[in-house]
Amino acid sequence: MRIRVINPNTTASMTTLIEASARAVAGPGVVVEAVTPAMGPASIESHYDEALAVPGLLAEVIAGERSGADGYVIACFGDPGLDAAREVAAGPVVGIAEAAMHAATLAGRGFSVVTTLGRTAGRARDLAGRYAPAGACKGVHACEIPVLELESDPTVLPRVTALARHALESDGSDVIVLGCAGMAAFCAEVSQRIGVPVIDGVTAATLLVQSLITLGVRTSKHDEYAPPPAKPYTGALTAFGAATPPD
Amino acid sequence: MRIRVINPNTTASMTTLIEASARAVAGPGVVVEAVTPAMGPASIESHYDEALAVPGLLAEVIAGERSGADGYVIACFGDPGLDAAREVAAGPVVGIAEAAMHAATLAGRGFSVVTTLGRTAGRARDLAGRYAPAGACKGVHACEIPVLELESDPTVLPRVTALARHALESDGSDVIVLGCAGMAAFCAEVSQRIGVPVIDGVTAATLLVQSLITLGVRTSKHDEYAPPPAKPYTGALTAFGAATPPD
Amino acid sequence: MRIRVINPNTTASMTTLIEASARAVAGPGVVVEAVTPAMGPASIESHYDEALAVPGLLAEVIAGERSGADGYVIACFGDPGLDAAREVAAGPVVGIAEAAMHAATLAGRGFSVVTTLGRTAGRARDLAGRYAPAGACKGVHACEIPVLELESDPTVLPRVTALARHALESDGSDVIVLGCAGMAAFCAEVSQRIGVPVIDGVTAATLLVQSLITLGVRTSKHDEYAPPPAKPYTGALTAFGAATPPD
Amino acid sequence: MRIRVINPNTTASMTTLIEASARAVAGPGVVVEAVTPAMGPASIESHYDEALAVPGLLAEVIAGERSGADGYVIACFGDPGLDAAREVAAGPVVGIAEAAMHAATLAGRGFSVVTTLGRTAGRARDLAGRYAPAGACKGVHACEIPVLELESDPTVLPRVTALARHALESDGSDVIVLGCAGMAAFCAEVSQRIGVPVIDGVTAATLLVQSLITLGVRTSKHDEYAPPPAKPYTGALTAFGAATPPD
Amino acid sequence: MRIRVINPNTTASMTTLIEASARAVAGPGVVVEAVTPAMGPASIESHYDEALAVPGLLAEVIAGERSGADGYVIACFGDPGLDAAREVAAGPVVGIAEAAMHAATLAGRGFSVVTTLGRTAGRARDLAGRYAPAGACKGVHACEIPVLELESDPTVLPRVTALARHALESDGSDVIVLGCAGMAAFCAEVSQRIGVPVIDGVTAATLLVQSLITLGVRTSKHDEYAPPPAKPYTGALTAFGAATPPD
Amino acid sequence: MRIRVINPNTTASMTTLIEASARAVAGPGVVVEAVTPAMGPASIESHYDEALAVPGLLAEVIAGERSGADGYVIACFGDPGLDAAREVAAGPVVGIAEAAMHAATLAGRGFSVVTTLGRTAGRARDLAGRYAPAGACKGVHACEIPVLELESDPTVLPRVTALARHALESDGSDVIVLGCAGMAAFCAEVSQRIGVPVIDGVTAATLLVQSLITLGVRTSKHDEYAPPPAKPYTGALTAFGAATPPD
Repeated sequence: MRIRVINPNTTASMTTLIEASARAVAGPGVVVEAVTPAMGPASIESHYDEALAVPGLLAEVIAGERSGADGYVIACFGDPGLDAAREVAAGPVVGIAEAAMHAATLAGRGFSVVTTLGRTAGRARDLAGRYAPAGACKGVHACEIPVLELESDPTVLPRVTALARHALESDGSDVIVLGCAGMAAFCAEVSQRIGVPVIDGVTAATLLVQSLITLGVRTSKHDEYAPPPAKPYTGALTAFGAATPPD
Repeated sequence: MRIRVINPNTTASMTTLIEASARAVAGPGVVVEAVTPAMGPASIESHYDEALAVPGLLAEVIAGERSGADGYVIACFGDPGLDAAREVAAGPVVGIAEAAMHAATLAGRGFSVVTTLGRTAGRARDLAGRYAPAGACKGVHACEIPVLELESDPTVLPRVTALARHALESDGSDVIVLGCAGMAAFCAEVSQRIGVPVIDGVTAATLLVQSLITLGVRTSKHDEYAPPPAKPYTGALTAFGAATPPD
Repeated sequence: MRIRVINPNTTASMTTLIEASARAVAGPGVVVEAVTPAMGPASIESHYDEALAVPGLLAEVIAGERSGADGYVIACFGDPGLDAAREVAAGPVVGIAEAAMHAATLAGRGFSVVTTLGRTAGRARDLAGRYAPAGACKGVHACEIPVLELESDPTVLPRVTALARHALESDGSDVIVLGCAGMAAFCAEVSQRIGVPVIDGVTAATLLVQSLITLGVRTSKHDEYAPPPAKPYTGALTAFGAATPPD
Repeated sequence: MRIRVINPNTTASMTTLIEASARAVAGPGVVVEAVTPAMGPASIESHYDEALAVPGLLAEVIAGERSGADGYVIACFGDPGLDAAREVAAGPVVGIAEAAMHAATLAGRGFSVVTTLGRTAGRARDLAGRYAPAGACKGVHACEIPVLELESDPTVLPRVTALARHALESDGSDVIVLGCAGMAAFCAEVSQRIGVPVIDGVTAATLLVQSLITLGVRTSKHDEYAPPPAKPYTGALTAFGAATPPD
Repeated sequence: MRIRVINPNTTASMTTLIEASARAVAGPGVVVEAVTPAMGPASIESHYDEALAVPGLLAEVIAGERSGADGYVIACFGDPGLDAAREVAAGPVVGIAEAAMHAATLAGRGFSVVTTLGRTAGRARDLAGRYAPAGACKGVHACEIPVLELESDPTVLPRVTALARHALESDGSDVIVLGCAGMAAFCAEVSQRIGVPVIDGVTAATLLVQSLITLGVRTSKHDEYAPPPAKPYTGALTAFGAATPPD
Repeated sequence: MRIRVINPNTTASMTTLIEASARAVAGPGVVVEAVTPAMGPASIESHYDEALAVPGLLAEVIAGERSGADGYVIACFGDPGLDAAREVAAGPVVGIAEAAMHAATLAGRGFSVVTTLGRTAGRARDLAGRYAPAGACKGVHACEIPVLELESDPTVLPRVTALARHALESDGSDVIVLGCAGMAAFCAEVSQRIGVPVIDGVTAATLLVQSLITLGVRTSKHDEYAPPPAKPYTGALTAFGAATPPD
């Protein structure tokens, strides 16, 4: 079983950490390959970044289909390109926001998201509206640490911990969701400090994809997620034209 | 890792089939123990049946806590006693309706439930409202075959297949959820015949619990799911008094 | 006309107070009989308690059917076993949370619930989602006084009054709902002190059941609330098997 | 106890029938006075009719306040002027759509409305959104019989009965709500013929108001329903200026 | 092109200001005629005021139809009589709350309403529920300045500005909607001071009506907004009988 | 005033038609410039197409900012890249689905969408959930004509007309929204044939942008739509790095 974990942030050191997290939970015999797209922004902190990350991400899904990947994880909390990736992939595709929010609803009665920049909070709320039943997401809180500083800033752990405690209190929640793939390394430690389940989407999504593959559940090709119709493309993305799976 | 699968329908042959399904997907080293409660109805086909099944189910959770179970599956599509079981258990507890509906939202854009008796359709709709985002569940359809006839009635497979096809068409859905633990054996065959993902909750829930245990995610004890306060019980359920975990 | 008020908290002194409240508002010629089930927890303060209270409650509905009761009140703010009781009863069954929330929406523009323990607030919110239109319930507040101390603790009245005042202010509500059958005695006094309508579910439900009986409105047996199918029961609840109404 | 039932349709024969229905269910010692406003349309079958019916209706509430009425029923299924009437009245005010929909949710799992003209169906759906939890109203069906022909047209009973049967089937509902005060006389007969609860709002509202008065629940004057600020009025409605209750 | 702006507050000086605002944005060749109804309250600050303002407002729509108006603006933030006006008018009718909320959703991710009296906040929230997607309106805040003091009170600008700043912060919104036609004059200045878009409904509605007329979009007469059925009216509103458009 | 209409379908003949539609409604002195991005798919008929269209579309917004455009229309019914475009633009940005759905809610009580391929219906429903209040969109219907055949296929007009009639009947709607920029030319003719308002998003969006510019309403830069943080980009999209507006 091969699971392809795509980090749409084109920063290789971040991909390395994501791969380690995913491998740590994957079952025996599961090959986890984390990849960094060849085009896109160094980190994703806006709708604009998301939009420009998606073509590179889709190229990695197409490459995965050719090389026999069984499923995909989109390792950015905005779940960019999820619907498009599902059209292209035969197997399951899961976003880390999606996986984390699902897991959170199984562990308690309501979750809060602790994320990076405040400007991405609206996207997190939109995704909660897409993935979770009404009322499950009790709040979204930003620590205002940029994505690429998560690795190096020594204040991340105490700040995320304090914000998570504040979120539990102010939101009346009982589970914390970490709102960035770059926070995966802090998951266990924050959980231990605050005494409630803390969910990291990278590991949650990896096991969800592994489970769907084990169950034999692939992406439905019945209607909306059928392979996209082939067509001409112009400009810098011309290469995608040929890459489109045959109808 | 030990996962306890509790079949609140007190029919041992059904429990045997459920155990086989769960074991077929569990990872290496995972012990799946399926149990039949010592009290409750032979099958669950009404709110009344659900209500009377719950005490026996909770007794099995309490027994699991004492014997070191790491997580629980509630193997009835009404997910009876889920909140109460989460109060009692330290590890994760997942219902099969919950697991199936979560998996269904990952495989397509909208699911239909194919269940046993029409009188249970309202319960399935209520659960969809609790677990899934608005609009994800496109419809609930009943084949009107009682739970305990699923094992023996030779018309089950063609009738469930035909109803699933009808549901896809009339609801505009692209994934089918089987609405009874007793339908697990038909899952792969129906999927092959109708060409879309078909989800069985028993296997989905087993892997979801296994994943949560691997992630180290237990039930939040922060607030609502904290152990229930100990108190005196009267009558036939007196034994539960002592069984209540210490506060 | 005979209305059976069932107190699923198996504490007889509490039942006595509930009966007095109900009788005080019932119309001439209406017989109010309040009963305490023979099995169940002394008080209901968790999902676990609710689950274990339901079989005893259903036994009292069955006994009521045999003795000719015309309707039922479930006198616990979690409305435990409501759907199952409606399957068993021919006449109307109303829960006190249901009745209180309905009355509250008629008296103002938004209500707050003042309840006992914080761990039950989620249940109150779930019930508001079931009974009331979106947005009608503006908040749920807990005074953290256990159910069985409501009778004796001299601080109940001032604490409930202060919490109700706080709820009006912080929630922007204009009606208070008391979230426990054991608070019925304080209803008029709290209302007088804070100057807004305060709703007690026991009296509200009693008059609602009385009204439905007068209107000739019984529980619909068309589909989901039809009598539950008869079936074998095992274990301590075996007696229920025979009690099931014939199909 | 004096309950004022206001028929905003200014057709006296219709008011007489409404009064008879209300009196038939009111408790001993309850005075029911049904009134026909001095201005307004002969029947209400559009938003325009509703708008023009409200001033006359409010004049009757003001008159009721002066003469000591304890509560009010608005006897038109559009519940016209409900919020304004609550500002003016000290006691409870209940609309018949509101009362009927509340009662319907207590009698089954989902109701259908059977009403007069199709052009009023949108209003019924809006009111369901205001009064009932999401999903409780399963459909609205029009028999296309004008309000003032309900008294005389001999086909009303068979057509309403057939439409109610159709609604149960097509909507998956189990309770019928009659969508016009003028249908009250058919309630029992339709219920008997189709075998499910059928709710008439006039009687339901009368008992709801009676119950609220018994409970001592008046309209909250805390905020939005406080008496409207006094101010000058110009034109044909000048008389209302003086009628405004003092602030 | 003739757009009729109806100010249901029967205060001529307010109508003059509204007319100036509307004319300032209308396109070349567009005739804006602002009118004050001959009956109704001097200002609208309650449901009661709204109810009594509507007949006069409808008389102005009827007069507009006779004199060839192409579209209508209802210049009161409660949008009184909107549905009835649409039944009567052939061309488009837009309320200023409706227009302001639509424009606000185009300018940012969530808006707050800053209005006059707190008692009208519930109406603003109801309208947000009718016009805007769930969650778009983040809050409603009242400055507690009566409508008719907006023209003369020198503290209006600083108080509205401060309240708008507070709303952005406490609600997490990024656009402000002014909740009264009488606030139009302050729109640009408040926007400049707080640095986010501030929407005035009078100008927004005028351009929306102008746009709909340019597009050739009139009110649908297919069903609910068809001309109301003609019928007899009694009392002070008798004149309306003749005014009803022929069916 | 300069409005830039961006057609993310990279088919120049389609852009020419869109430009003609937009110019036909724009006010005097308004410059409408329709542009075709230099990269992207020939037509947009899947999530995949949308994803690959967005970078080219954003490049046109960036070019517009440099050349002094005052506002933007995104002329594809999926409104691709709307949030990202709002981050980049100072003035207003409106999508044609957004504009059409807003206009539709002003013209009637409920609209149906008539679109091209069935596989895009889910996207239309998602957008209705984002733009319109719950229940406003009554249905989405596909004529199964590919986008680029709309210009040449002689059966488009009769098929769209027939489908619109069917939608009104089956959905109970009273307004039709055309679900593709390529259908603009048929708008008036379909409306005339079916007798209800038919909305084309290109013209609706053009006038909405023109109105917002007239009102002085720009995109809020308070929070989520602030200019995206500058950062390095790799691969084929590197050019975007420099194009990012300064923070």
